[in-house]
Amino acid sequence: MKKYTQMSREELLTLQQELSGEYEKIKAQSLSLDMSRGKPGTDQLDLSMGMMDVLHSGVDLRCETGVDCRNYGVIDGIPEAKRLLGQMSEVPPDNIIIYGNSSLNVMFDSIARSMTHGVMGNTPWCKLDKVKFLCPVPGYDRHFKITEFFGIEMINIPMSENGPDMDMVEELVSSDPAVKGIWCVPKYSNPQGYTYSEETVARFARLKPAAPDFRIYWDNAYSIHHLYDDNQDFLVEILGECAKAGNPDIVYKFTSTSKVSFPGSGIAAVAASKANLEDFRKYMRIQTIGHDKVNQLRHVLFFKDLDGLHAHMRKHADLIRPKFELVLHALDTELGELGICDWTRPHGGYFISFDAMEGCAKAIVARAKEAGVILTGAGATYPYGKDPLDSNIRIAPTYPSIEELAQAVKVFVLCVKLCSVEKLLEV
Amino acid sequence: MKKYTQMSREELLTLQQELSGEYEKIKAQSLSLDMSRGKPGTDQLDLSMGMMDVLHSGVDLRCETGVDCRNYGVIDGIPEAKRLLGQMSEVPPDNIIIYGNSSLNVMFDSIARSMTHGVMGNTPWCKLDKVKFLCPVPGYDRHFKITEFFGIEMINIPMSENGPDMDMVEELVSSDPAVKGIWCVPKYSNPQGYTYSEETVARFARLKPAAPDFRIYWDNAYSIHHLYDDNQDFLVEILGECAKAGNPDIVYKFTSTSKVSFPGSGIAAVAASKANLEDFRKYMRIQTIGHDKVNQLRHVLFFKDLDGLHAHMRKHADLIRPKFELVLHALDTELGELGICDWTRPHGGYFISFDAMEGCAKAIVARAKEAGVILTGAGATYPYGKDPLDSNIRIAPTYPSIEELAQAVKVFVLCVKLCSVEKLLEV
Repeated sequence: MKKYTQMSREELLTLQQELSGEYEKIKAQSLSLDMSRGKPGTDQLDLSMGMMDVLHSGVDLRCETGVDCRNYGVIDGIPEAKRLLGQMSEVPPDNIIIYGNSSLNVMFDSIARSMTHGVMGNTPWCKLDKVKFLCPVPGYDRHFKITEFFGIEMINIPMSENGPDMDMVEELVSSDPAVKGIWCVPKYSNPQGYTYSEETVARFARLKPAAPDFRIYWDNAYSIHHLYDDNQDFLVEILGECAKAGNPDIVYKFTSTSKVSFPGSGIAAVAASKANLEDFRKYMRIQTIGHDKVNQLRHVLFFKDLDGLHAHMRKHADLIRPKFELVLHALDTELGELGICDWTRPHGGYFISFDAMEGCAKAIVARAKEAGVILTGAGATYPYGKDPLDSNIRIAPTYPSIEELAQAVKVFVLCVKLCSVEKLLEV
Repeated sequence: MKKYTQMSREELLTLQQELSGEYEKIKAQSLSLDMSRGKPGTDQLDLSMGMMDVLHSGVDLRCETGVDCRNYGVIDGIPEAKRLLGQMSEVPPDNIIIYGNSSLNVMFDSIARSMTHGVMGNTPWCKLDKVKFLCPVPGYDRHFKITEFFGIEMINIPMSENGPDMDMVEELVSSDPAVKGIWCVPKYSNPQGYTYSEETVARFARLKPAAPDFRIYWDNAYSIHHLYDDNQDFLVEILGECAKAGNPDIVYKFTSTSKVSFPGSGIAAVAASKANLEDFRKYMRIQTIGHDKVNQLRHVLFFKDLDGLHAHMRKHADLIRPKFELVLHALDTELGELGICDWTRPHGGYFISFDAMEGCAKAIVARAKEAGVILTGAGATYPYGKDPLDSNIRIAPTYPSIEELAQAVKVFVLCVKLCSVEKLLEV
């Protein structure tokens, strides 16, 4: 295959005509496919149906301390749930608070709390002229939406396969007291599937923030979400690393079972130092009488322990690995030698990050939509929805069936080709 | 029986000696009883165990629109849950948003949202010098804790059996733009069990607030929580009343199934105008990917409709009515003619409000604690925990068993007598 970038104008025009013809044919099929969100497929949800059987009217709903899970009380989680999510988070149960069904909600509340009440006695952010957050890019759109919603200025930090540009992070964090946080998805990152290197984690743990209320928002959403048994990424546990570095309070680590059990009905947790957790609890004691303990018990009875979680995640992997491989195979064979794009090859998580030619992402997403394939909006992976190069597209292969995915990728590949040719013709 | 207030000093001294003797005997029994919180008893929780059976691995977990309740999505509740809680709230499903397991959390979030983002485009409260809330007293401690936590100034409004003093409410709301809200438990109020009269509701609906972002926080926590089949209170539906009065946006109405199904694992809802709900949704779309829809479905399948809810509440009533009657009987026979106290006789809800002689509430609660009976802290029913008369005590009869309750009330009555005699001797 000849690289598009080496084609003559005449060759490009011929190619454009061919591709346009194909595109019109596909449009005529009136497809309706969705590759936009990191949602598990129905077959994955079925894996957890046993969870609906572990509790029935014959089961004693008291937790191991004898507290009735059905009633009010126990603000920060039943002990067995703390143990389970502690294992998943690689921290002792005492460093865990269990929340409701959404870790995103916990992150939102952490920002909201910092705005109105400040972090561990520091000035509430709403009283400050300026609050800034560092945002490794491309990154998770829902993180950026939270900080945007609270009027927090976001600063792009380039990502490499080792994690964020730590020179830049260290410089900004140590020099600017308005920098109060950084959003991280440290393992199988959203959208690249990168895992922060040992050195990156060590440098995070040793940060010397200008702001005493600077926190690392460590969203370990994909901690056990491997695609392969043999080819797994390893992430250094950050809480221990921070404690060793004399920085025990610098990090909030978030996790949840959203893509382990049911996305809408899982349990979420925060792992942090005891001082940080006490700060969280002060807020929680006013905010709620407690989260859903019956659902906590349901998760413990279904998964039992870390081995149970891993065994369960292997079943997820068996279902989604073929989807990742299908997408990667199509990209490799159709686009691999054209010199117009690049993409990641994750070992876990939910996404593939795709970089088109500069100025093409929006056009590709729009073309795909016109042909009935919904992709994550171009720009969504950047703060304010603004990808400065208009290049990045997040591919989410898990939700469609294999058959739908094959169709969707075909459309995607075609749109990439067509938009790239048109871009090259513009010059 | 002779009124204590008519006794001579000598008579009082003799009585004091008698009562002290009884008190010492009871203390020697080392009791451990709890009448402090409005928690359902274990027998009440057992009523909802069928809820653990309606979902099992053989049940289709899609809601009526075909959406898979297990997955992400549906920010504001599945239609059948909106219908069920709409019926419970006496409003159309379109005026309902379904939340997680705690209506207190929804109220907290409403205040937090108003602080950081303002109400329907108005200035965020955190940018204002002063924000005030009206607090009918005695009232619900958890309400007052929320407004205190956000530094909102609270103003006591006296309650009568018709509701808050509406002359005072109208005056403050119409004259002071810093007054942004009022906490109401309009039916079977916490702690008196009063229900706002038709006139009170009508006056609420016709308020002319100086602040465009003033809202009535209508916590209808006990809407269907009757104690009797034949002797029920009736509350005028506030949303319709406000709409008729040309004030559709003035009220947020909160409800939940916390004391219907399981307190820790119910579902909560807000009923409000569409403009208000859109304001809520703007926040929710950033805050979460959605609440637990599987639990919503579980509630709908178990209760089915309003008839199902009412039938279920009758079973609750059968269990707690004898507890209320036991307490009232003990108060009537032991304290009824002593001229030292007063209490309410609710037709529903979870509490009896008890007024001791001025300056005696703290002493009574302390004495009871010393004898092994935990009561709600004296003062808890007032903002800042400060009961100006030190008189009000909230009695929560539902959680202990009948046997425990009989013992606890005996201790309570004795402490009331003893503290009252000591008070009279002080003069």
